[in-house]
Amino acid sequence: MTALLLVGTGLIGGSFALAARRAALFDHVIGIDRDEEMLRHAIESGVVDEGLPDGIMPPREDVAAVCLGVPVSAIAEWVQRVAGCFSDDTPIFDVGSVKSKVVREISPPRPNFVPCHPIAGSEKQGPLNASADLFVGQKIVVTPLSETREAIVRVVESYWHAVGATTHRESAESHDRKLAVTSHLPHLLAFAMMELVKEANAEQHIGNGFKDFTRLADSDPDIWANIFAGNREELEANLERLIDLTREIGALTGDLDALRQRIESARRRRERIS
Amino acid sequence: MTALLLVGTGLIGGSFALAARRAALFDHVIGIDRDEEMLRHAIESGVVDEGLPDGIMPPREDVAAVCLGVPVSAIAEWVQRVAGCFSDDTPIFDVGSVKSKVVREISPPRPNFVPCHPIAGSEKQGPLNASADLFVGQKIVVTPLSETREAIVRVVESYWHAVGATTHRESAESHDRKLAVTSHLPHLLAFAMMELVKEANAEQHIGNGFKDFTRLADSDPDIWANIFAGNREELEANLERLIDLTREIGALTGDLDALRQRIESARRRRERIS
Repeated sequence: MTALLLVGTGLIGGSFALAARRAALFDHVIGIDRDEEMLRHAIESGVVDEGLPDGIMPPREDVAAVCLGVPVSAIAEWVQRVAGCFSDDTPIFDVGSVKSKVVREISPPRPNFVPCHPIAGSEKQGPLNASADLFVGQKIVVTPLSETREAIVRVVESYWHAVGATTHRESAESHDRKLAVTSHLPHLLAFAMMELVKEANAEQHIGNGFKDFTRLADSDPDIWANIFAGNREELEANLERLIDLTREIGALTGDLDALRQRIESARRRRERIS
Repeated sequence: MTALLLVGTGLIGGSFALAARRAALFDHVIGIDRDEEMLRHAIESGVVDEGLPDGIMPPREDVAAVCLGVPVSAIAEWVQRVAGCFSDDTPIFDVGSVKSKVVREISPPRPNFVPCHPIAGSEKQGPLNASADLFVGQKIVVTPLSETREAIVRVVESYWHAVGATTHRESAESHDRKLAVTSHLPHLLAFAMMELVKEANAEQHIGNGFKDFTRLADSDPDIWANIFAGNREELEANLERLIDLTREIGALTGDLDALRQRIESARRRRERIS
């Protein structure tokens, strides 16, 4: 019997567990979660087969791989804890949204830890919303270090392919720079926009466009506080650049042709990703 | 036979025409559009029954009301043109996203012009996307002046109620202040975000959250250049306030508890509007 050890039974980790079992990668899933209610939900909904109390980590021979679905601030610590319990042949991978800070915290680097980030998710959270289909057609960024064993990276990539995703390797730094733009900054702005709409007493003037724009604000506070803290420098730098660009466009209201052209370019780019 | 004269046969005006005819408010719709292809589409898709070339405005006794579906920069001029052709008993109303600048441009105020703004829309445009259901359950802000005839305001409000919407009266200034927050600023940020993602070469790191956040960037450049110009002061003021709030939240990464609490408040507000 081969088992997946899933630490953190939330939406992403839980979805990986469901998808991996459907793909017959493992035939047993052991869950660990510091949130006892979450763990109970994970067991009741079939995301995991058995739960272990947080803090207990017996070496178990049936564990073939470890998936860390914990907040980014907890990943490095869990890598160290888990690595001590299993051989260097056991793949350990995470699903966190920040990579540089996490890999820097693991010193010396662990040859069997493969940092991963699925560009997939939902504003819905927890094991009850987990879905075996979450990764189908989605991209997974994999950010191995030079110290990471190539054979282990390939095994973890094969897991992602088995659950329907494509993988793409790049450096942790490049990942964090790009995710600051495509995910972290949009979340930050969505939270700030909910403050502004309250200040302006404009809740009665909300339409569907505003709902789309702020959908990301319905995200888990603990996860996102840690992501912002974990990628602070890239987040701040990109916020300042976005401020410059936004003011620039706003200042074109005296030159309607230039404004139209700039909007048209942005629109064409948006069309291409739809 | 009672006719609606529809000037500007795009998504909003076209949807009003379809909805109004379904509600039996009018039995004939006459369309005018400076864009001949748009007008042809409006005729072919049954949004209007007949088209008139732009610039021709014969007084016609069958016209019971005039709906102006033109960009905000053209509304005041059209009010003046139309008002000269019909009696002061004929309701004229617009569907534009900016109100203060438009009503200031109409001097003296026309007693039969009722400024309206449906808080409804779509990133889809044009008469081919018009829908008789667009206004069902949506809010329409009506911003009459003290000079606007109460009886005419009530007739126009009854049109909106007949097509399934609710109406809400407020000043043009209040409308513009609030829409700057809930619509104009989100559009501006969505356009700017498409520039940032290009600069950062991060298109391959886009997930569904980013697509929601930037959906508004797929909007008509001419319409939005005019809206930004028409509501420039409120847009700029609210952009600066959003910048302050965003930097404030971003600066809390050194105090995770405070950051979490602030995100949690924003999240609860977002939950309430879902």
